[in-house]
Amino acid sequence: MKSVNIGLCGLGTVGSGTFNVLRRNIEAIQSRAGCTITIAQVGARRDNPACDLTGVNVSRDIFDVVENPEIDIVVELIGGTTVAKDIVDRAIANGKHVVTANKALIAEYGNEIFAAADAKGVVVAYEAAVAGGIPIVKAMREGLAGNNIEWLAGIINGTGNFILTEMGDKNRDFADVLAEAQKLGYAEADPTFDVEGIDAAHKLVILASLAFAMPLQYDKAFTEGISRIETRDIQYAEKLGYRIKHIGIARRTEAGIELRVHPTLIPNKRLIANVNGVMNAIVVKGDAVGPTLYYGAGAGDEPTASSVIADIVDIARLLSRDSMPAVPSLGFAELSDKPLVDINDVTTGYYLRMLADDKPGVLSQVTTILSNHGISIETMHQSEPEESETTAEIVLITSQIQERELLTAVSEMEGLETITGSVHKIRVESLG
Amino acid sequence: MKSVNIGLCGLGTVGSGTFNVLRRNIEAIQSRAGCTITIAQVGARRDNPACDLTGVNVSRDIFDVVENPEIDIVVELIGGTTVAKDIVDRAIANGKHVVTANKALIAEYGNEIFAAADAKGVVVAYEAAVAGGIPIVKAMREGLAGNNIEWLAGIINGTGNFILTEMGDKNRDFADVLAEAQKLGYAEADPTFDVEGIDAAHKLVILASLAFAMPLQYDKAFTEGISRIETRDIQYAEKLGYRIKHIGIARRTEAGIELRVHPTLIPNKRLIANVNGVMNAIVVKGDAVGPTLYYGAGAGDEPTASSVIADIVDIARLLSRDSMPAVPSLGFAELSDKPLVDINDVTTGYYLRMLADDKPGVLSQVTTILSNHGISIETMHQSEPEESETTAEIVLITSQIQERELLTAVSEMEGLETITGSVHKIRVESLG
Repeated sequence: MKSVNIGLCGLGTVGSGTFNVLRRNIEAIQSRAGCTITIAQVGARRDNPACDLTGVNVSRDIFDVVENPEIDIVVELIGGTTVAKDIVDRAIANGKHVVTANKALIAEYGNEIFAAADAKGVVVAYEAAVAGGIPIVKAMREGLAGNNIEWLAGIINGTGNFILTEMGDKNRDFADVLAEAQKLGYAEADPTFDVEGIDAAHKLVILASLAFAMPLQYDKAFTEGISRIETRDIQYAEKLGYRIKHIGIARRTEAGIELRVHPTLIPNKRLIANVNGVMNAIVVKGDAVGPTLYYGAGAGDEPTASSVIADIVDIARLLSRDSMPAVPSLGFAELSDKPLVDINDVTTGYYLRMLADDKPGVLSQVTTILSNHGISIETMHQSEPEESETTAEIVLITSQIQERELLTAVSEMEGLETITGSVHKIRVESLG
Repeated sequence: MKSVNIGLCGLGTVGSGTFNVLRRNIEAIQSRAGCTITIAQVGARRDNPACDLTGVNVSRDIFDVVENPEIDIVVELIGGTTVAKDIVDRAIANGKHVVTANKALIAEYGNEIFAAADAKGVVVAYEAAVAGGIPIVKAMREGLAGNNIEWLAGIINGTGNFILTEMGDKNRDFADVLAEAQKLGYAEADPTFDVEGIDAAHKLVILASLAFAMPLQYDKAFTEGISRIETRDIQYAEKLGYRIKHIGIARRTEAGIELRVHPTLIPNKRLIANVNGVMNAIVVKGDAVGPTLYYGAGAGDEPTASSVIADIVDIARLLSRDSMPAVPSLGFAELSDKPLVDINDVTTGYYLRMLADDKPGVLSQVTTILSNHGISIETMHQSEPEESETTAEIVLITSQIQERELLTAVSEMEGLETITGSVHKIRVESLG
């Protein structure tokens, strides 16, 4: 039986998870891979008490691992785009296969990394970089290979989904739940990365490249965070038959590819609208298969390790048969740039919430403005004014409209004397 | 660029879907495969008006296809286990790779077919045989390769799920909805195959082998159909916070592997409880990844074609690199028989519905019997007797209990003078 040697770089959350799952499930993993799999070296600046490293060749200099001639597969679980990039570059240059869980690295440097890997005939596998334990890269690159993908939409940041779920279930506000998420370890001290959609955008651009055969272009995704969502938006949405989720959407349209991350109202009958807490899910709509959905843990030590090890097994299966890598890094033999659609040109539905004088004619002013811009109202809710209040909240959901048109209409509404303050707006997608 | 020649056997629903999707999406498919893919021959007893066969080499003798030396991949879409088996056997003997959507063939003859394919060094791929367009075989065999699978549970028969969904949503009875399903083409004239769980059992044994590294053993699955489910069971279940689904379950326990298809109450908060209509979904619980779910169309021309073509692309990718097949047919290099658990030894919760005299002490008789058998009550509902009725319906959900024990308790209840008729029972699974 052939033997495949793993060099594990990093012993943080995912690194220790990978170490421990590889150890615990080694029998099943080897039977699946058809070869012996050995953790031949671990590179980590410090040990992790979660891992029993007795008898393991541990190096404090992570670069020792990529220079070790016995290592077949370098598993990069350091994170970040500095040392991690050096490790991956050196591993490829040394003719080693690479497995990584690093979404930032792939989203920002994937094009050059994949080109270098191709030139060397090695694999750079990154299942764990998108949606943790969900085998979505494999599904898109292989399982749906017969389809032209029309669109995909995903809850691909567990922190954001946890916050929105808690706000809705427990009637708590954003800041309150964020503080709890930080205490539980779901959110970082600086939550920007999760809450403002940057992490989701990293994953979205990878999924979009897999869907639409285009190079990775991280800096092009439109991102809007969830910090402006109020608890009562979630409650109004519920009344109208919707849930609010932080969604990454990539869609092929005649004008080009849409790439956007933002809070979104989704009909509550959709399966993805029922994905709660820290869980992730991605809907992929293929022209042949129709909608498919993939659900699971999007982060965490062992869920992410599950995907890291799946990639290790894929490569080990090749090595055990002396086979060549056969699946292109982004699924297609050739990629080409596609025009991207500016967010102002995107067509979507809109949820609007505004504070209006509680007197006759106000609603008619609002609907006239909408109608002048070719926007119709799908559904509406008007709250009764509070005791001693003279204003009432109007909530409505518009038909599909180009964003630019909607913004003009909203600014006209905000100019009405009968409307107080700004009109709060959230995009709506049917995902049908 | 290398060229891979497809021989398509069968032009029924899936055959015509495969032909048309291959034609329509050929550009993306070839870019994914890294080679030219040609439908070099079609074997079909008659043409299908859904397919434009102009210029296509069509043979009325399906066996011409497997004898054609130019064919690299035989795609068997005939169905059944007679001619289809001969086609597959001959294709393998002639050193051709095989793609099939035939669940009965794989479930019943997979062991010998895979052995023959191994001996010849060819692939027999069958993604389309389980849950139509959902890439679940790939997920289990590759995407979750790092896990020891603990259990899986699936809605893997769309007809049954359509019937149960309609019964619940529209308050219609089984026979009524079945007749509609037959009219819509979702159910056959003889619905036994779908409604009694035989089709689901075919898929379940395949999934169980992929999960637990054991040979296929179709005849060993316990199956119970949905024809005894009444609309009011669905309504009571809803009141208690559950949905009724026809589920195939495979579970690893200390006593062995459970393999069972039966109607099942599932908590309505579970994502799979919200999978409605003809859609399929499978939950797979891995020890590292936790629960994951895969959802999509479980049947139909183009959804099934999606999986057929994914398998074609997998094989074409190998052929284009002169690589050897690297993924074992059932995911593991070695399979071994595992003991199966008799249904009487299975531990599960139970929904019980009974007609009881509406007088003091009856409920106490029932709970005493349950308690004597170590069964506690999780939740209960007692309906008010109708005007002029002297009996009322008691519905309850028990704690987890061994089936044998539950059956004894039920037979004691049925012996009570205060209970009329038999106690209606449905299994309950938390799938947590």
